[in-house]
Amino acid sequence: MYTFDYLFNFTKNVFRKMGCSESDSKIIADVFLAAELRDHASHGMIRIKDYYELWKAGRINVKPAVKIVHESPSTAVVDGDNAIGMVAARKSMEIAIRKAKKAGTGWVAARNSNHFGIAGYYAMMALEHDMIGICLTNANPLVAPTFSISRMMGTNPIAVAIPADKQPPFVADFATTPIARGKLAVAEKKGEKVAFGFVQDKNGNPSDDPTILKSGGSMLTLGGDRVHGSHKGYCLSSIVDIFSALFSGANFGPYVPPSVAYLPLLEKKVGEGTGHFFGAMRIDAFQPAEHFKAKMDEWINTFRSSKPAEGQERVLIPGDPEREAEIRIRREGIKLVPAIKDDLIAIARELNIEFD
Amino acid sequence: MYTFDYLFNFTKNVFRKMGCSESDSKIIADVFLAAELRDHASHGMIRIKDYYELWKAGRINVKPAVKIVHESPSTAVVDGDNAIGMVAARKSMEIAIRKAKKAGTGWVAARNSNHFGIAGYYAMMALEHDMIGICLTNANPLVAPTFSISRMMGTNPIAVAIPADKQPPFVADFATTPIARGKLAVAEKKGEKVAFGFVQDKNGNPSDDPTILKSGGSMLTLGGDRVHGSHKGYCLSSIVDIFSALFSGANFGPYVPPSVAYLPLLEKKVGEGTGHFFGAMRIDAFQPAEHFKAKMDEWINTFRSSKPAEGQERVLIPGDPEREAEIRIRREGIKLVPAIKDDLIAIARELNIEFD
Repeated sequence: MYTFDYLFNFTKNVFRKMGCSESDSKIIADVFLAAELRDHASHGMIRIKDYYELWKAGRINVKPAVKIVHESPSTAVVDGDNAIGMVAARKSMEIAIRKAKKAGTGWVAARNSNHFGIAGYYAMMALEHDMIGICLTNANPLVAPTFSISRMMGTNPIAVAIPADKQPPFVADFATTPIARGKLAVAEKKGEKVAFGFVQDKNGNPSDDPTILKSGGSMLTLGGDRVHGSHKGYCLSSIVDIFSALFSGANFGPYVPPSVAYLPLLEKKVGEGTGHFFGAMRIDAFQPAEHFKAKMDEWINTFRSSKPAEGQERVLIPGDPEREAEIRIRREGIKLVPAIKDDLIAIARELNIEFD
Repeated sequence: MYTFDYLFNFTKNVFRKMGCSESDSKIIADVFLAAELRDHASHGMIRIKDYYELWKAGRINVKPAVKIVHESPSTAVVDGDNAIGMVAARKSMEIAIRKAKKAGTGWVAARNSNHFGIAGYYAMMALEHDMIGICLTNANPLVAPTFSISRMMGTNPIAVAIPADKQPPFVADFATTPIARGKLAVAEKKGEKVAFGFVQDKNGNPSDDPTILKSGGSMLTLGGDRVHGSHKGYCLSSIVDIFSALFSGANFGPYVPPSVAYLPLLEKKVGEGTGHFFGAMRIDAFQPAEHFKAKMDEWINTFRSSKPAEGQERVLIPGDPEREAEIRIRREGIKLVPAIKDDLIAIARELNIEFD
């Protein structure tokens, strides 16, 4: 078990050694650790190696000049200068919040960025300002549109954070596919099958094989099949892709660059890097903040008191599982599986920093 | 078969006779007919009777003063004065477009409104202004959150319309449930079962009975069950509900008033009427409009050329089926089933207008 502080400092030092500034390294470490605390280990310490390899391959810029390239009273486009995603994303969300303070809402599209960790982190930045936060990003293509076998979209997540008063905030943060890709990797490592409805084989037949992506298969959109509304998941993934890439000038759909160094950059580019989209909405641009937050308490209490189905203990509010995980993990510490620990030890050795 | 003009004029005359102004009656007729043309008959002429019965019961205001009650540069809250939904919605979307012209984006929450027909109609209003249009609405409760058997949410649709250049626009318009409620009614009339994954019985057991809502059952969210991501559909429905009701001051979740007169008004109110949420985003607040629209053509062409799965003819772009239906229905005319025709004849007789 590791403490938050130990892993935070280690992560910060890794990125310092790679050449990031002290403040950028702190931002990056904060997002990695937020994923661990929220029990989304798939976006936590396991990913440091991917970023490290991208850096060694010269594919990310550790001294970026992230800047606004276009703006209106409520909008901006940010060029991330090929930054590590967290650095471009945090700055973009700060701009959205600043815009919202003046115009009521702020909307920022970022291009020329890279993988940024958990989308929920940026959406939640709005909460302390009594704003609703929104974050979308596209990602490298693994997902097929309805009726198709081509990998055209990423698992393109949507995050929305909404403040309440006495209740904890409502925080939704989800891929627009039935499961995150990481769950396939977990099943593969355990030698288990997955449920039908997550993936299809290269011909579009239903599959329960978690390794199917390696043989030309693809992930399905939320809904699974056409009968159960996969076209709605396809709509959602598409909207995330268009907002992230076309508002900003990033690569869209099948052209989004891979977030790992062992996959080569694509020959064709239709924009710059990966794209994100951020929103901040001042609550009092609509309702007095105290009134809205009291109503949000009422909303949460109403939904929390829905009657559970047979065999279910309780009905959850989006954000409940992650918040409860954070309390537990802060108390118990963060556990790393041996394979990840070994990766981090190897990185520490190469960078000449401490880790054990 | 009826012509567009015949049904448009009939519908307009029905609402004129109910006391709506000429311009409001035209708006209402336009939305009803748009649903017919787009092959969403579930939101077309079949619903006129519901509105007529609500009017006879004194539950809708045919001479509303729809007005802005709060605003910021990029936002507004509209009070619909208990208008027929189309009237409050069209005015709200016009305000969002006006706001976007100045601030880059415009966001309008409406309360004290009623059922407004198809959400896509309002989202598409943005297209001719080179804007992206967004429309959300809550609706009377039929849908259970994940793990629950309580009907807490409506089928809460999301509509997003995005302009292209030579290609037709991208238009997504979908309920955040696997199917719209109307499909249950169709299966019931035909005496057929439905697929599992749409509804559950009063105890939360899977069901294929399209009449199950009458015996305490509920609809499921997009994803169907927890394994296949129903919690993501629950997040989406919740976000639509909160944006529609809490930004505006409308009723939320289980308190949204019924859109049919045969269901009584609820005793408890937590806001005013039904709530909607509208967005308009000026494309050139992010990218030059010509550049964005050319990229959107490229996006559409790329996705349209995805490889179809075995047995599938082609991959669709959101909006394709409705646009193709409109071309066909404008040519062939609009067909009404005998039961709907009889309802309209009865209404015509009571209002002393022509219909045959």
